[in-house]
Amino acid sequence: MAPAPSESHPPCVFCDIIAGEAPAHVILETRDAIAFLDIFPFTRGHLLVVPKHHGARLTDLSREERAGLIDALHEVIRRVDRIATDYNVALNAGARAGQVVFHVHFHVIPRYGEANPFNPRVRRPLDGVEAKRLVAELTAP
Amino acid sequence: MAPAPSESHPPCVFCDIIAGEAPAHVILETRDAIAFLDIFPFTRGHLLVVPKHHGARLTDLSREERAGLIDALHEVIRRVDRIATDYNVALNAGARAGQVVFHVHFHVIPRYGEANPFNPRVRRPLDGVEAKRLVAELTAP
Repeated sequence: MAPAPSESHPPCVFCDIIAGEAPAHVILETRDAIAFLDIFPFTRGHLLVVPKHHGARLTDLSREERAGLIDALHEVIRRVDRIATDYNVALNAGARAGQVVFHVHFHVIPRYGEANPFNPRVRRPLDGVEAKRLVAELTAP
Repeated sequence: MAPAPSESHPPCVFCDIIAGEAPAHVILETRDAIAFLDIFPFTRGHLLVVPKHHGARLTDLSREERAGLIDALHEVIRRVDRIATDYNVALNAGARAGQVVFHVHFHVIPRYGEANPFNPRVRRPLDGVEAKRLVAELTAP
């Protein structure tokens, strides 16, 4: 059972995924971080890399947690190279920067030659069959 | 004098800045990284955080160089908080993802409520007076 939200911070969907209490298409889990598919991908293989420590901002993490996060990011993009040579990495801090979940995370967005895929109106839910295929491609070490 | 380009890699404007041979509005320099103002800022205070080791991709850095890079990024965004609470962090890998300088770097882009500042056509050269003001605001530890 997750700790009562009042103990530390408001309910957080990423903390629920980390605790194994919400579903996610996980492709990597390390001591410090977890990476899973975005369920409203901008492009095929859009992933999130999330530290296990709950904090809204990068500046809420310790030096060790930051190093663990960038190591996980490194491993994720090493694997993304299997499906796309090019990609954007993005971290949005604050509502005016487009942050929606207030638990710090990097987006990794493979690029295939689209002019500009960052249109929220064309974001469609991740297809289940496609998700399984991507997990198979991206989970192998 | 910079090493001859043929020794390791093609001429690189970021390596020239790191070597002190090209001008830049530097706001932070650590053992592993340097941060300076983007000369075609998307918003006021747009910065680049650059590892000293030359490599096109994050995956070209060692674990220690990655940790040093994210530590510098952390320090930069701690200071950016003086001018804007919200910001985007972005790393573009490959031409199809918008990478222009093939020496890995994070953009830090303060946000002030613009709907979408990422229009290359509205990017104007950094004003010299404004640059001095920003360096004064952002260099104090």
